[in-house]
Amino acid sequence: MRLRLTPRDTSFFDLLADSAQHLVTGANLLAELLGADRPTRKELAKKLAETEHLADDATHTIMRRLNQTFVTPFDRDDIYGLASALDDCMDYMEEAADLIVLYKIEELPARVGEQVQVLQRAAELTAEAMPRLRSLNDLAEYWVEVNRLENQADKIHRKLLAELFDNVSDPILLIKLKEVIEILEQAADAFEKVANMVETIALKES
Amino acid sequence: MRLRLTPRDTSFFDLLADSAQHLVTGANLLAELLGADRPTRKELAKKLAETEHLADDATHTIMRRLNQTFVTPFDRDDIYGLASALDDCMDYMEEAADLIVLYKIEELPARVGEQVQVLQRAAELTAEAMPRLRSLNDLAEYWVEVNRLENQADKIHRKLLAELFDNVSDPILLIKLKEVIEILEQAADAFEKVANMVETIALKES
Amino acid sequence: MRLRLTPRDTSFFDLLADSAQHLVTGANLLAELLGADRPTRKELAKKLAETEHLADDATHTIMRRLNQTFVTPFDRDDIYGLASALDDCMDYMEEAADLIVLYKIEELPARVGEQVQVLQRAAELTAEAMPRLRSLNDLAEYWVEVNRLENQADKIHRKLLAELFDNVSDPILLIKLKEVIEILEQAADAFEKVANMVETIALKES
Repeated sequence: MRLRLTPRDTSFFDLLADSAQHLVTGANLLAELLGADRPTRKELAKKLAETEHLADDATHTIMRRLNQTFVTPFDRDDIYGLASALDDCMDYMEEAADLIVLYKIEELPARVGEQVQVLQRAAELTAEAMPRLRSLNDLAEYWVEVNRLENQADKIHRKLLAELFDNVSDPILLIKLKEVIEILEQAADAFEKVANMVETIALKES
Repeated sequence: MRLRLTPRDTSFFDLLADSAQHLVTGANLLAELLGADRPTRKELAKKLAETEHLADDATHTIMRRLNQTFVTPFDRDDIYGLASALDDCMDYMEEAADLIVLYKIEELPARVGEQVQVLQRAAELTAEAMPRLRSLNDLAEYWVEVNRLENQADKIHRKLLAELFDNVSDPILLIKLKEVIEILEQAADAFEKVANMVETIALKES
Repeated sequence: MRLRLTPRDTSFFDLLADSAQHLVTGANLLAELLGADRPTRKELAKKLAETEHLADDATHTIMRRLNQTFVTPFDRDDIYGLASALDDCMDYMEEAADLIVLYKIEELPARVGEQVQVLQRAAELTAEAMPRLRSLNDLAEYWVEVNRLENQADKIHRKLLAELFDNVSDPILLIKLKEVIEILEQAADAFEKVANMVETIALKES
């Protein structure tokens, strides 16, 4: 609906796709970390922190480019919002990994694995969707599926909370585990927020 | 101050009013739930979750309409923000009810009733104010009163926190109760955010 | 890049500088409070609450002026965002002070002092930077340094968390201390958010 002046700087799509690709790497490292022993966990958390730095650089590149480009492929604020939202997904995953190591958690409840599987799937779908922003085609299946995944994550999260209070009698361990599963839930919310932004962009531009 | 092209799609006002009406239902269910026994609480939390779904549908209708309408009664982002903020109020109330059930909390501190009374009053005021957005008349009393209510909620919340740490010696029970009263405080903040947005809209458009 | 109609209302710069000046006062009161005995802490927390009220008034003045001014020195939303972000810095500092008193915490870990020193430095830099928004000169050193400070705050915060879980065996005391140090971390994040907004404004306007 907005007037468009050509040529539009299309490299934003590549930058957003790069950023989303880091999320796939991050989610996979997180999944690997859950099943690892403590020394390996420490290494994997370090790798995840490095991936988070790369994602951070990608976000800063987008922001800088955004501030210097006169014509953007769509609404400047939408690109800004999308880059920030992708960044949030990574931050939560990195924070969860860091706390698992920092809190010296021995064993995580099995259902935490289900939470992380949801994140892995959401990350893959997000990375696949970003390049499709160029044409704005075939995006509906992506945002519908990520919304469904978030509902699933929410159910897993509430079940985990109930299990935690039923089974963990040590309050200090409970505080640690509760924080980790809540950050993973925030990561799932962050992926949904990305999908909602993509939906808004697609509807506005269509 | 902005140019207006007629006709403006005024049905946004009805949609926002509908959305706010669900908040009244939600706050009343929450109040009822506090005094109920555990099986009744479960039923009431289910009803609140259903109300939350209805509110969610209302929000999605607003968002979809917003993305497809060329001329909106006021700034597109303001309508979007208002609908999201109303949604947040509901989400917090539903989450509080759900956790009370999930955590199998037996008895809640009396002052939690005061928190919920503030939410009921804020919900009523919000539902009454939404239709007045059409004319932008008589809104000041609404936002002033909701700001006052939020201050009151904040005082109740801090008193509750102090009481909790003075009286509850079981750390696990304390974690549960603290989370519930904090979510109720976030609900009061969310109502204030709605009121602040209405104030901003009214001042811009006047 | 936007068209500018003169005269621009430059008093926004003074209002933002005023608002930032309250942050310096607030951070210093917070530092003083850490080392004080309990009755003095109560008085200092009260003074901090008064400072927070003054800052609140400053924010409301900005918002009101913003809604009534046709031409603003830069993007209306950017001024709004900056005023809100400055407000958040103060809110977190006030909340931390209030909880230290409310929770009747006797002794705080030494490293909390390091967290507050970072906040004092960030507040000073912010107050010095605000008047430079007028010319948009010499701002890069400010936002680079505040970003560095936030990284430092993050490291201190994670060390504090590890120390807390290693050394505090009383879960109720742990809950109290954890909340205080997390709010201080949120204050550091809030200062970084201000700096990021200043960076965005400077890049857009340059």
